[in-house]
Amino acid sequence: MNFILASTSTMFGQDYLAYLSTALEELLSDIEEVTFIPFARPSGISYDEYTKTAAKFFQGLEKKVKGLHEFQNPVEALQNAEAIFTGGGNTFLLLKTLYELNLMETLRQKIQDKTPYLGTSAGSNIAGQNIKTTNDMPIVYPPSFEALKIIPFNINPHYLDPDPNSTHNGETREVRILEFLSQNETPVIGLREGSWIRGVGEELHLKGKFSARIFLRNQKPYEIETESDLKFLKA
Amino acid sequence: MNFILASTSTMFGQDYLAYLSTALEELLSDIEEVTFIPFARPSGISYDEYTKTAAKFFQGLEKKVKGLHEFQNPVEALQNAEAIFTGGGNTFLLLKTLYELNLMETLRQKIQDKTPYLGTSAGSNIAGQNIKTTNDMPIVYPPSFEALKIIPFNINPHYLDPDPNSTHNGETREVRILEFLSQNETPVIGLREGSWIRGVGEELHLKGKFSARIFLRNQKPYEIETESDLKFLKA
Repeated sequence: MNFILASTSTMFGQDYLAYLSTALEELLSDIEEVTFIPFARPSGISYDEYTKTAAKFFQGLEKKVKGLHEFQNPVEALQNAEAIFTGGGNTFLLLKTLYELNLMETLRQKIQDKTPYLGTSAGSNIAGQNIKTTNDMPIVYPPSFEALKIIPFNINPHYLDPDPNSTHNGETREVRILEFLSQNETPVIGLREGSWIRGVGEELHLKGKFSARIFLRNQKPYEIETESDLKFLKA
Repeated sequence: MNFILASTSTMFGQDYLAYLSTALEELLSDIEEVTFIPFARPSGISYDEYTKTAAKFFQGLEKKVKGLHEFQNPVEALQNAEAIFTGGGNTFLLLKTLYELNLMETLRQKIQDKTPYLGTSAGSNIAGQNIKTTNDMPIVYPPSFEALKIIPFNINPHYLDPDPNSTHNGETREVRILEFLSQNETPVIGLREGSWIRGVGEELHLKGKFSARIFLRNQKPYEIETESDLKFLKA
């Protein structure tokens, strides 16, 4: 396998994907065209507009971008993709659309066959065991919460530490993930914005500036440092 | 109908349900026993422990509380309930359990038959058209997102205004609800903590100290004042 699963597309005050430039040059060194999956539609943006946003960034790396929605036969287009990027937005909408277009098995196969893959936010969520640790609002009902199972655990992207000054009674992110673990055995990695997971062959490492938070059933959550090996994370 | 649908159970620095005491004395004036639905299990708390928390508060109003899980036949127990309180926690877990125990139709019927009903947070979410505007993590997969449809719109509980100082790239609550409206026609009311909806017969009003935020498809979100009539909110 050969993938980057990033917590976020954009760091505060920076351009889209800018913080990942060096890592993406390495991931996509031999690639001419990236097939973009725009189905998560952040803020309800159209597929075309979203694809333009991605294309603008990848122009700087001298890669072409084509949206998967531009092809008449998306299954075939995905089978022929040189590299794949799934952008963030709403995880439920993304997963529902992938199921409806019968793309899940092809996408899984392509990533397992070492096609370079970039996921950001929702595009990283779907690489886990299921989407039960997404932060997104369930605006549509997918036929299943089961995801691509590229990694043997779940990601919680945009991980946020509890705010000690909060006067709000909504659950903290940590409480939500512990609720998940009261019903599920799948380990969870809380990926802060600026962190990503790099998979190369059988190797799996945490990358970026920050530590990440590990949540295992019946254990106290704890931190792991960047560059940590993630192969230990299994149900 | 005769219900209170509250954004939250607890205001910052106060005891459980304390801010609703006066409103609950009115709602439950002739009631001796409240049937408590503990299925949302906030932070994974047990049904028994959660029922104790509710009982402790209602003791102060001289009402007994019995958890629905304590009955051998929950459908029958719900049919016989004098008053019903559904506590907050995880909306997906709550809805899945209600479907599994075949309680949805009975609960809907009881509320329509004017049995006093209190919902807080997840317990308010399920009174709407569907749970697609919950803030909760989808820790389990319910057989449907369709809810009780007691009110002709959806609630977003614990509504939070965007933080102008945020450096986080996660979607604001407003963006999430606008994403919902890009896929759905159901109106949404963003209920701030401290607000509730009071339904009496056919009347429907916003209560509490705060204004609420109204989200309609293809319209700019706007505020309505407390005591506003909510009958205009229909798809």
